[in-house]
Amino acid sequence: MNSRRNFIKKTTIAGAGISLLPGFTFGMNQSVDKLKIGMIGVGLRGTNHLNNLLLRDDVLITAICDIDPKRISLTLDALDKAGLKKPEVFGNNDFDYRNLLNLKAVDAVVISTPWLWHTRMAKDAMLAGKYTGLEVSAANTMEECWDLVNTHEQTGTHLMLLENVNYRRDIMAVLNMVKQNVFGETVHFRCGYQHDLRHVKFNDGKTAYGKGVEFGDKGISESKWRTQHSLLRNADVYPTHGIGPIAAMCNINRGNRFMSLTSNASKAVGLHDYIVKNAVENHPNAKLKFKQGDVITSTIETTNGETIIVTHDCNLPRPYSLGFRVQGTNGLWEDDGNRIYIEGKSDPHQWDTADDWLKKYDHPLWEKYGELASESGHGGMDFFVIHAFIESAKLNIAPPMDAYDAAAWSAITPLSELSIENNGEPQDFPDFTRGNWINRKSYNWIKDSY
Amino acid sequence: MNSRRNFIKKTTIAGAGISLLPGFTFGMNQSVDKLKIGMIGVGLRGTNHLNNLLLRDDVLITAICDIDPKRISLTLDALDKAGLKKPEVFGNNDFDYRNLLNLKAVDAVVISTPWLWHTRMAKDAMLAGKYTGLEVSAANTMEECWDLVNTHEQTGTHLMLLENVNYRRDIMAVLNMVKQNVFGETVHFRCGYQHDLRHVKFNDGKTAYGKGVEFGDKGISESKWRTQHSLLRNADVYPTHGIGPIAAMCNINRGNRFMSLTSNASKAVGLHDYIVKNAVENHPNAKLKFKQGDVITSTIETTNGETIIVTHDCNLPRPYSLGFRVQGTNGLWEDDGNRIYIEGKSDPHQWDTADDWLKKYDHPLWEKYGELASESGHGGMDFFVIHAFIESAKLNIAPPMDAYDAAAWSAITPLSELSIENNGEPQDFPDFTRGNWINRKSYNWIKDSY
Repeated sequence: MNSRRNFIKKTTIAGAGISLLPGFTFGMNQSVDKLKIGMIGVGLRGTNHLNNLLLRDDVLITAICDIDPKRISLTLDALDKAGLKKPEVFGNNDFDYRNLLNLKAVDAVVISTPWLWHTRMAKDAMLAGKYTGLEVSAANTMEECWDLVNTHEQTGTHLMLLENVNYRRDIMAVLNMVKQNVFGETVHFRCGYQHDLRHVKFNDGKTAYGKGVEFGDKGISESKWRTQHSLLRNADVYPTHGIGPIAAMCNINRGNRFMSLTSNASKAVGLHDYIVKNAVENHPNAKLKFKQGDVITSTIETTNGETIIVTHDCNLPRPYSLGFRVQGTNGLWEDDGNRIYIEGKSDPHQWDTADDWLKKYDHPLWEKYGELASESGHGGMDFFVIHAFIESAKLNIAPPMDAYDAAAWSAITPLSELSIENNGEPQDFPDFTRGNWINRKSYNWIKDSY
Repeated sequence: MNSRRNFIKKTTIAGAGISLLPGFTFGMNQSVDKLKIGMIGVGLRGTNHLNNLLLRDDVLITAICDIDPKRISLTLDALDKAGLKKPEVFGNNDFDYRNLLNLKAVDAVVISTPWLWHTRMAKDAMLAGKYTGLEVSAANTMEECWDLVNTHEQTGTHLMLLENVNYRRDIMAVLNMVKQNVFGETVHFRCGYQHDLRHVKFNDGKTAYGKGVEFGDKGISESKWRTQHSLLRNADVYPTHGIGPIAAMCNINRGNRFMSLTSNASKAVGLHDYIVKNAVENHPNAKLKFKQGDVITSTIETTNGETIIVTHDCNLPRPYSLGFRVQGTNGLWEDDGNRIYIEGKSDPHQWDTADDWLKKYDHPLWEKYGELASESGHGGMDFFVIHAFIESAKLNIAPPMDAYDAAAWSAITPLSELSIENNGEPQDFPDFTRGNWINRKSYNWIKDSY
């Protein structure tokens, strides 16, 4: 272990070495056949990842951890039914995951826990030398963003942010179009998380997405922890589904970076309105003042002169949309309306439906794995994000979305909070690469096999 | 004249008196049958207004002014063909419009000139006691915004901003829905001017919207004056088509007001790219550095806690869209995609196409005049804005979009310029009503007959 650590430290100091070193064999075991995975958190999200892992023949689930015995029991049943060896089980207390991290029989971990545990678990995992897969969002505070980067640099252990939307079929086709210069020089982007989560933030304490207006101790599943963020933080607390795909398209941390951000929040009335509409009269939750503005709009400027609008819109009734727009000197794609206009190709001033364009530029990965992926969650995205994680971990090379990306994308949360609190005052992004973004090479999203 | 002025000054001091006083007979002539109109500017836009005025039997065109003899000649021909009396003609020099304003035979003026003339002409018109119709945008600087308000208050003469988009059929239906609380409490709005103007900003000096990359002295029509604003100002120079309809929906200056704004501009590459693509090699215009960012995004906060995103996107290839969104606690309308979602009415998480909703809430004015309006320009909007102007002028009462609105909406230009120049620093809106917005009554967009 020491020699690897030392080697990696040296290349870190030398520059972008780690990220590009191919075929570096994994961890202590020079002859890994199957990658041994520890699952930290096997709630709804972790189980989804588990199901995708079970489809593969190159991994073993050697350990699981959850503080909820019901989730452990469900997971053991599933593994047993799949005819797999019983994994080691952890979850006796909040920090039992550290015992999982001490296992030699774990090469890599997948962390799918409540947000406040993400960074501390990922940090511990990297310190333990485990290739780390971390669910979104990665960090809650600026200090946590730095923790991810600094721990990666200190240990040489890789972190992959498991942002599935980067693998959405239309997103990858549009990324392909960007790389092939179909839009010309990129100028402006839009994205966000526009998802009515009222039925997720509240339930009746019995079913995850049922009726009811309870949360926290009286709620179950996500309402147990997620709603508290809406109650106390006026910030874009969930930026990565939107910003991840856009960051890939404009090479953030790889020749470009986020420079500054302004954020503005609308009033916060949606969650109160939901409680009043769905609760018995005089329910105590109807008296709560939620801090999170219903629609939070952040505008980011990049060093390359693009602007990116990021929206967080989760407390009002609305159909789901991530609201992407990709715009350049030749034309633009808009997710809403499913439309594309490319000058000289489209009829003047008329939208094309995006379908033919997306088909023409379908990503090689989707062409190859699309059918297999369709069995997976979230329209196939979940297959690809796990695939990329496993393939990167097997080679122990830098993943497509690394610690620097996790930090830069998640930094939107604390920066938006500060900006909103200060009337939209612009906030500077830290340069998590410590200047290296000018040298770091673009991840090859198109030609790499994951 | 003096007695009217004195009366008006008194009511101004007393409060919102002027705006609400109904049936005040016009000007000096207590028995006006037909409203006598002076046209200042009879270019393409002024001619459009003229054609709408000629459809009416309650107006006379008594004077026209334009410094371009060709436009005068075309206009005189049109009036002659319509069998109308020859109007008095002005245009010998840039300030000949002041001689038009001195005519007793002019009750009201319609100003359709290049932007830099808007405020100064409107101010002179109010000082001359003429009911003033002013094309958009109203003002270029903050000082000019105040000029409009102060001159209105000083003279008691009304100014109407001729913002036609406030009369678009879907906009008025959605306004109707807002007023009937269909969207619940309003939270968030989007709007803007997303219009590929490259073929307007440049031409060959022969045809207005032809090919070519000339502007200024070598261009004709709008390219003669409009492009200079793109060359030297990094600002949203044309905000009113977007913000006008939204301001009406959220009662700006009438129980609500714009508080602050942040603006960010993307890089400016679109106009240069257009020149390079369309000019002969080494054309001198290919060396110009345009200051106006291709996509300018402003986020406004209102005192009532709504956020409004205003986009200016005129230098890149794209189909036209004003990109409206109106969102509240019950649901939302999106212009792009022509869709509406109202909780409890729409299928859960599914968009309705907007058509049925817009038909159901069709505005009474459109029901009444829709057929007539369809002969008019811009899909009928131009009929209604002129109709409102003439009906307001005949009664000499405050118009739907007055000097305070003109100032607040146009203030986006200088405020966005300052914010952009200062990295997105928030800028406060002046309170052009001097505090009166807390008392000013909402204009009755639904029930009034114009």
